[in-house]
Amino acid sequence: MTNDVFHKNELLDRESLHTLQGVRLKNVVFQASKSRFYRDQLFRAGVRIADINSVEDIRKLPFTTKDDLRNHYPDGMLAMPVDKMNRMHASSGTTGSPTCVFYTKNDLQTWADLMARCMYGVGVRPEDVFQNMSGYGLFTGGLGIHYGAERLGCCTIPAGAGNSKRQIKLLHDFHVSVIHIIPSYALHLATVFESMGMDPKSLDLRIAIIGAEPHSEAVRRRIEDLYAIKAYNSYGLSEMNGPGVAFECPEQNGMHIWEDAYVAEILDPETLEPVPEGEIGELVLTTLTREGMPLIRYRTKDLTRFLPGDCPCGRTHRRLDRILGRADDMIILKGVNIYPMQIERVLMSIPEVGQNYLIVLERDGFLDQMRIKVEVKEEFFVEDMRVLKNMQQSIARRLRDEILITPRVELVERNSLPRTQGKAKRVEDRRQES
Amino acid sequence: MTNDVFHKNELLDRESLHTLQGVRLKNVVFQASKSRFYRDQLFRAGVRIADINSVEDIRKLPFTTKDDLRNHYPDGMLAMPVDKMNRMHASSGTTGSPTCVFYTKNDLQTWADLMARCMYGVGVRPEDVFQNMSGYGLFTGGLGIHYGAERLGCCTIPAGAGNSKRQIKLLHDFHVSVIHIIPSYALHLATVFESMGMDPKSLDLRIAIIGAEPHSEAVRRRIEDLYAIKAYNSYGLSEMNGPGVAFECPEQNGMHIWEDAYVAEILDPETLEPVPEGEIGELVLTTLTREGMPLIRYRTKDLTRFLPGDCPCGRTHRRLDRILGRADDMIILKGVNIYPMQIERVLMSIPEVGQNYLIVLERDGFLDQMRIKVEVKEEFFVEDMRVLKNMQQSIARRLRDEILITPRVELVERNSLPRTQGKAKRVEDRRQES
Ligand SMILES: [Zn+2]
Ligand SMILES: [Zn+2]
Repeated sequence: MTNDVFHKNELLDRESLHTLQGVRLKNVVFQASKSRFYRDQLFRAGVRIADINSVEDIRKLPFTTKDDLRNHYPDGMLAMPVDKMNRMHASSGTTGSPTCVFYTKNDLQTWADLMARCMYGVGVRPEDVFQNMSGYGLFTGGLGIHYGAERLGCCTIPAGAGNSKRQIKLLHDFHVSVIHIIPSYALHLATVFESMGMDPKSLDLRIAIIGAEPHSEAVRRRIEDLYAIKAYNSYGLSEMNGPGVAFECPEQNGMHIWEDAYVAEILDPETLEPVPEGEIGELVLTTLTREGMPLIRYRTKDLTRFLPGDCPCGRTHRRLDRILGRADDMIILKGVNIYPMQIERVLMSIPEVGQNYLIVLERDGFLDQMRIKVEVKEEFFVEDMRVLKNMQQSIARRLRDEILITPRVELVERNSLPRTQGKAKRVEDRRQES
Repeated sequence: MTNDVFHKNELLDRESLHTLQGVRLKNVVFQASKSRFYRDQLFRAGVRIADINSVEDIRKLPFTTKDDLRNHYPDGMLAMPVDKMNRMHASSGTTGSPTCVFYTKNDLQTWADLMARCMYGVGVRPEDVFQNMSGYGLFTGGLGIHYGAERLGCCTIPAGAGNSKRQIKLLHDFHVSVIHIIPSYALHLATVFESMGMDPKSLDLRIAIIGAEPHSEAVRRRIEDLYAIKAYNSYGLSEMNGPGVAFECPEQNGMHIWEDAYVAEILDPETLEPVPEGEIGELVLTTLTREGMPLIRYRTKDLTRFLPGDCPCGRTHRRLDRILGRADDMIILKGVNIYPMQIERVLMSIPEVGQNYLIVLERDGFLDQMRIKVEVKEEFFVEDMRVLKNMQQSIARRLRDEILITPRVELVERNSLPRTQGKAKRVEDRRQES
């Protein structure tokens, strides 16, 4: 089976995986040292190739940021001359220089293998008809998954983004069984089905790959219900090739990060030290197999955590929680790191709480304080002060359990908080005002 | 050299090419007979595989039209089950069913090889940086040339269509040496360069592949001058894979049609008999290597002719003239086939003639007549009736030499003919009116 090529490492025992990572890390540091950027970086950090002998030695290595990529545009990050490259992808970056990633022929092959592994792992087979509803071109989501699906042997329909009626015609007429779709578009498309008098459940669809935008578990379940399919989360970023970095398995409980291709660290965004196992921090990734443009300890700015324990599916590669926000959103209060997403998750798990909330940071004398204004659903907003007081205390307690600090909770009526089109403003920092 | 794979047949002597076509034709008829459509077609035509023993036997085979593809949508043309397919492309067809083409893994490989052959033939090399300005997705122009360029080993930038300022930034920053661009967009992009105070000649660009829309030799020369590059014509249609069917060589004198992959016939669109060597007719193509969806004697509706003689470049595959119009535009007058493009070419070669003309077909008793209203440039429109009369006769004579019929020529002043936005109406058929 040619499929062995892309899934042979999935069940590797942790010790072998650990050894493999060490060997590949040394290789990739050597390869990276051929680029102008890393030659200087390693020299400045005083790290020699001989110093890297296991994956733990990664902590000796300096970090790489998006700004480094921009500042060494267009080719300062390349470990091989441009004429050895086979592809270039770039971020859409509206201002300044785009972030560019180069791939050799081998890099494209490895990427396609990883992507095919992700898809095979959730049950996609060569017999499937796959419709890719992602935009193609410089964006990695389109061609990345396209090559994976073709590698796997699916009949690939490069539908691209938009044109809902045509998407539906193709889905129906070609008995499409697997799609790649942006979650919000999946919800929108279901309404188009409805307006055409069609039921998305009547399709031959089995599987959706969803990614490219943050979405909640509720959205996933809704997509699964609307189409009567399974939907799997995909994680990737163009700096790490694109899609195919981490992917859910049939357990739908965290995304396995492919540790034969990437070293994943979860670090405190302030101290850049590892967070305790299972806690939230910034995901920092190192490419282990890339030859054209290796990246070492790349700060993704994405917040997540390792999920504890082994996955029942048998894959040995560790699992990442869904992306919980951006490192830039982190709040430091009384020396504790707090992520707005942690607060949101607690609030949204409480039945009485509505859709809106606002976190206010204030200075009370020399003491920093957090006040959280929480909208209460109409049916729970009663006149009885005692009931409200109880609710307030209960919410504060549950928040303290999560963020280790007890905030002041203020209950407000529905629609009393400022609403913004699109992304709501969730944090108001007034600490510098006084 | 891996490049041998895609160019080994280019210099094959005619006899060997002829033999190869015969063998492949028999194979492809056998393969096609596995599809529902061709099983019926061959049965009805009373053709057995044993009847096909040389490429001349192609004349025993029935034709295939775009309507056949539409009527046997979605999978009646397939010679293998959908689960053996690796890609599907479709026409954008705004109404009714789209025209769909399926490719197996082998078909994609052969297509990429042919496309790489085209590009290698005009001097593109693995060291080149290639920017593809064609839209990706279901349209074959994007992915078709993309795979060819990657096959050849170029660093491929999948820029896609539009966003001129980003196109220019990429062209400049990555020292792009080869582009794929629609001719009219190449002219437009030059004006964007100008508006940015940049000279397209200052780029590292060497080669442009132009195609996907009809354009004149003058447009090609203008692109070459504006960018100080060589521009090569490309011919293809999605039913025959997409781009890579015929392509110019460095001689820029006709497009070699790859006869190891296609049988090309030029037929009278009415009688479907071959036109005399070198005369204009409809291009009819048969795929010789396709396994997923072979097409036999596909009527492209494109008008062209074989260019006579051998090409100085040494390639033995015959050359097609640029596409001269659509077969549907053919006029039959007094039993003679006339193409508006023939008339246009004669008119445009006469310095006194302006931009506009109108062909009127009329019935004079039992006799069909052609009258051509020709706009004369302002500076040549004199009051002297003798001069105009001479001009009139001279134009009529030159048209007769080309179309074998003497039309009545009527000279009119500039701007006196109806102008339409976009495609001008060139033919007015009044023969049914009386
Ligand atoms: Zn698992
Ligand atoms: Zn030639």
